[in-house]
Amino acid sequence: MKDIFCRIIEGEIPSSRVYEDEDCIVILDLSQLNKGHCLVIPKQHYETYLDCPDELLSHLSCVAKKIGNALMKAFGAKGVNILANCYPEAGQEVPHFHIHVIPRYEGITGGFALKTTPQDTSNVDFKALALEIAKAI
Amino acid sequence: MKDIFCRIIEGEIPSSRVYEDEDCIVILDLSQLNKGHCLVIPKQHYETYLDCPDELLSHLSCVAKKIGNALMKAFGAKGVNILANCYPEAGQEVPHFHIHVIPRYEGITGGFALKTTPQDTSNVDFKALALEIAKAI
Repeated sequence: MKDIFCRIIEGEIPSSRVYEDEDCIVILDLSQLNKGHCLVIPKQHYETYLDCPDELLSHLSCVAKKIGNALMKAFGAKGVNILANCYPEAGQEVPHFHIHVIPRYEGITGGFALKTTPQDTSNVDFKALALEIAKAI
Repeated sequence: MKDIFCRIIEGEIPSSRVYEDEDCIVILDLSQLNKGHCLVIPKQHYETYLDCPDELLSHLSCVAKKIGNALMKAFGAKGVNILANCYPEAGQEVPHFHIHVIPRYEGITGGFALKTTPQDTSNVDFKALALEIAKAI
């Protein structure tokens, strides 16, 4: 079965399109976590950011930048989160790669927040950890 | 005054480097929101994702992908969040553009979570909203 973004791209399901080019569409997220919340979606199906080819990923990233700047300009947003969740464990809800562009407004909590809790790193061997990642690149 | 990332890049402040090339470094985030949490940082100073030139942004995005895949491989992460916070209102803590690559592990809450609350959109004119953004691109 096709995922919902493939169906939107093919026009089977309506959407509010903000931008479109040969390789991607940008639509409004139906949840509108904040006013103007957009999704940048490749037309070609890839599951996540992590398996999207470099050239396409580069293009989508530049489109996300363009949209972020437009949100600052259009609605006076004071900040923007650019976010790609890879796999359900990271909060990905549709298995078709997409980049969230979420504007943030002064004094408005809205529907999006990052919950970050610095961890106890007293026993972390940073040098060894860095090396382990470097070896896996 | 130089920001902390400029000082890390120039070697004035130590860091745990995971990767380096002509245009960027990747270091472990000291807060380690989850094990292996990395930052992709351009050597050239730009304040945010939104003012980084396209070519450099493209490169950094592909490096973030490479690191995300390495974290999946090295530590058996089940997901990854790729995140750029633009301006303090969006949670940016250092005014030097950086991309967070945050692995997510099965059954481990760790120090990072997205708090999302879908908004009441019954009065939102999606078509008009999309048009306003499109005009600002």
